[in-house]
Amino acid sequence: MKIAMAQVNSRIGDLPFNTSCIINIIEKAKASGASLVVFPELSVCGYPPRDLLNFDPFIEQCLEAITQIASHCNGIAAIVGGPDFNKGNSGKRLFNAAFFLEAGKVKQVYHKGLLPDYDVFDEFRYFEPAKSFRIVEFQGKKIAITVCEDIWNLNQPALYSFTPMEELIEQSPDLIINISASPFSWNHCLERLSMVSNNARKYSLPIFYCNQMGAHTELIFDGGSSVFNSAGELVDSFEPFTEDLRVYHLEEIGKMKAREITESLSEDDICMLLHDALVMGLRDYFHKQGLKKAILGLSGGLDSALVLVLAARALGNENVWAILLPGPYSTDHSVIDARELAQKLNIRYDIISINDTVQTIMQAVEPLTKDTIPDTTEENVQARARAIILMALSNKFGHVLLNTSNKSEAAAGYGTLYGDMCGGLSVIGDLYKTQVFSLARFINASQEIIPEHTIIKPPSAELKPDQKDSDSLPEYPLLDSILFKYIEKQMTPGQIVASGHDADLVNKVVKLVNNSEFKRQQAPPALRVSSKAFGSGRQMPIVAKHL
Amino acid sequence: MKIAMAQVNSRIGDLPFNTSCIINIIEKAKASGASLVVFPELSVCGYPPRDLLNFDPFIEQCLEAITQIASHCNGIAAIVGGPDFNKGNSGKRLFNAAFFLEAGKVKQVYHKGLLPDYDVFDEFRYFEPAKSFRIVEFQGKKIAITVCEDIWNLNQPALYSFTPMEELIEQSPDLIINISASPFSWNHCLERLSMVSNNARKYSLPIFYCNQMGAHTELIFDGGSSVFNSAGELVDSFEPFTEDLRVYHLEEIGKMKAREITESLSEDDICMLLHDALVMGLRDYFHKQGLKKAILGLSGGLDSALVLVLAARALGNENVWAILLPGPYSTDHSVIDARELAQKLNIRYDIISINDTVQTIMQAVEPLTKDTIPDTTEENVQARARAIILMALSNKFGHVLLNTSNKSEAAAGYGTLYGDMCGGLSVIGDLYKTQVFSLARFINASQEIIPEHTIIKPPSAELKPDQKDSDSLPEYPLLDSILFKYIEKQMTPGQIVASGHDADLVNKVVKLVNNSEFKRQQAPPALRVSSKAFGSGRQMPIVAKHL
Repeated sequence: MKIAMAQVNSRIGDLPFNTSCIINIIEKAKASGASLVVFPELSVCGYPPRDLLNFDPFIEQCLEAITQIASHCNGIAAIVGGPDFNKGNSGKRLFNAAFFLEAGKVKQVYHKGLLPDYDVFDEFRYFEPAKSFRIVEFQGKKIAITVCEDIWNLNQPALYSFTPMEELIEQSPDLIINISASPFSWNHCLERLSMVSNNARKYSLPIFYCNQMGAHTELIFDGGSSVFNSAGELVDSFEPFTEDLRVYHLEEIGKMKAREITESLSEDDICMLLHDALVMGLRDYFHKQGLKKAILGLSGGLDSALVLVLAARALGNENVWAILLPGPYSTDHSVIDARELAQKLNIRYDIISINDTVQTIMQAVEPLTKDTIPDTTEENVQARARAIILMALSNKFGHVLLNTSNKSEAAAGYGTLYGDMCGGLSVIGDLYKTQVFSLARFINASQEIIPEHTIIKPPSAELKPDQKDSDSLPEYPLLDSILFKYIEKQMTPGQIVASGHDADLVNKVVKLVNNSEFKRQQAPPALRVSSKAFGSGRQMPIVAKHL
Repeated sequence: MKIAMAQVNSRIGDLPFNTSCIINIIEKAKASGASLVVFPELSVCGYPPRDLLNFDPFIEQCLEAITQIASHCNGIAAIVGGPDFNKGNSGKRLFNAAFFLEAGKVKQVYHKGLLPDYDVFDEFRYFEPAKSFRIVEFQGKKIAITVCEDIWNLNQPALYSFTPMEELIEQSPDLIINISASPFSWNHCLERLSMVSNNARKYSLPIFYCNQMGAHTELIFDGGSSVFNSAGELVDSFEPFTEDLRVYHLEEIGKMKAREITESLSEDDICMLLHDALVMGLRDYFHKQGLKKAILGLSGGLDSALVLVLAARALGNENVWAILLPGPYSTDHSVIDARELAQKLNIRYDIISINDTVQTIMQAVEPLTKDTIPDTTEENVQARARAIILMALSNKFGHVLLNTSNKSEAAAGYGTLYGDMCGGLSVIGDLYKTQVFSLARFINASQEIIPEHTIIKPPSAELKPDQKDSDSLPEYPLLDSILFKYIEKQMTPGQIVASGHDADLVNKVVKLVNNSEFKRQQAPPALRVSSKAFGSGRQMPIVAKHL
């Protein structure tokens, strides 16, 4: 039996687009002799559709799309993910389902049993967990279909009180198929491979793992669909961040050469993944909304330089516009470095001084502020003057403003709300500053693209004379190490101190994070590439006493 | 047996504050002869603590607080809500628990069975649902303790596949106690009373319903704790939005006079509730963060006038500062109306023209925009010039900027991101414009507080000559009617048309709502007073094709 897997880039809510894409792939798979073609979780509507699921007619349209897709399943079967109504007399309205389509109709429906509800996942908001599970018989083979989290219950203590595979294995399946929508994060991809492998080994069955790719606002899906033999060895895996259709002889999985699974990713591997994830995230944000053009403020610093490179790669240099906005404390080299980069990338740039704007605003408030001393107010006015100019150009010419803040700044609240925190999308908002350096070095590896001076000069917001980030923040390697423990590892200040950091410094950093929660809740969505990004995956109260 | 109920205003995460407040009330209840005193759901840490629950030491501190509270329970028992570890070998880390404290220690722990996960609720993110339920025996009485949603499963089809009271009733309880954290919404309060009453009647038992009051960022809890006799009749209810402790003779509940439960609220009732909810919401946002002073832009229009009145009532007129920011298209009467209101309320106001700022910004971009025609860009620059001036004063003097947008604007995207959408807190962001009118009339009922002219003049953003809101939006009663059906009722455009609206208009309005999702996700938190507010309760994707 030949089984095809389709790693597709669905569009949230765009049922006509997704349906026609799925039908085309079914035809292709049939032409290549496949008996069965597998699509990712909720592929008919894209994952995550969020509160679109609350509208009954939306579900009805999804079911109609499934029927339409089924009508193309002649001479080939397909597994397609989509929402299904719960027809029982209690529980949530919906199931998260895998539809098995054969002979022109829906032959069997499998409902997901384990619903993730942590970090960016909120499946209990919509779905009822299934409690019983049946294999599908097809061409003499018994298939254990599972949906994403269904195979993620091997850890101890188990997060869920039952495991669908335990019931399915009693029915003597010949193989496992898992359809997923498992998002990318640089510190999670190996864990995913290992979890799929462990299932293959535990149940002594080959697994076909089919994962969604593509980006949906902040969530990035790499795909990385793969096949494991019954010994748990990886025998094939798809290119990440790429749509693809591959066909396998089920009978030959056991004979395919096993590939080594690396135990840890090198810094270069990680940079490559981050780079490709962010480029796809940017591209999908624009193209899925029918948008083409981006604008950004290019400061001469490293953050905006990196965003410019990524944007040029994602959208084409002709679609990116850089604005240099020197202010009263900008250094000459900032303008020089920014211009050099724009010229090297062949990107249109313009220079607009913010000095008059800043001066006029300070004059406007002068009758009220004349007896005060300078503080961060004056710095914020500069950041906001830049934002108001960028937004004027964005509005006038229809370019989407890209935000260029990094995660260290966002964490520490080292940014101006309605100033440098503006933008439709935060491109590197889930990269710590130390990762920004690494990615810049990675991009420059074979050829200097980002001016060396931009990388080596001390980071500065240039909002007052001779300002350096290190005046108010610890050096970034130290800051990022504490932030990573607090945010990704969810360690308390006490635990971070016990891990070897200075108590005063830890308390200062944690306080900065907690006190700037109100800022982050008004920040643009940030492309998520870590296991704990700011945004929907980290829900902290604003009015609260923190740890 | 005398039972006391404490409607308390907890502080999220502030365990020392909450603990000391609970202990004080226990002493008071004991002094008044009560045998048992009841506190709301998660009262030890406040509801909702959100991702603070992900930190184990936070849970440990909650449990220590419970132990400390228990040590004060001598001669009196207490029921206190808090998180508890799940000591089983599978499932989520935590339970949402009611601790029964007696004789100086924790006598019994009840775990919540039904976990809400819809609208603003996300309890599956943190908690494992309990599957078995035991009554508590105390002074010869059998008490069925339940936590909030546990008694919310009487509708058909049932949202949950089991009902804790069905198991508890088998154990022959003498009364039901429900501890809750059920947030306020104007179109939900009667449903809540009716649900509690239905439980009393169904199980023929008196119910003591103890609900949290106080505001936590956007979430507002009215309290409205109440007692029902075993016939389901309301015999007492607490004042909403007020902390209180009341004591009841259990044996006399059956003899207490039943109060009428109104079938529907009058417009005046609703306005009173909205008024009190917003005043408390504002006050708690400030005072729980140790903040005192607010600033806002007073335009002469109705929205900012209403916010000024509410802010003066919540914070004291001496703590509110109004800035009048006339621009190139402001009418004289706007400044006159704004000044009249500020003077009447004895609120400090200052006038700063935005004209120079607007002109300077337009000059700054002029080399790039000179061949373009005026559009919304020029309007947005005016709104953002106001924001940058307000934020400069906010930063300089430490006043929190209040946002004055209403729900109709937020829905239709009729507001400028980083302009009039700025602020730490949106005060009336969950009031449709028609509700803003009603509330203004309510405030003016006995005496003109808001200038009549502010109420009767046609709404205008005054961003271009002779502009009226009705130039680009339908009249508000019509707009709000469509918005209510789309947002609160979750009807699709087709269903709204079928309910009697013009198809083109419905499609236009729905498109405005969908296309402005990116704006709302960067809006400040808005005090939630409806059953479906923008914010955490409505999670729509940005990059998506909508219905």
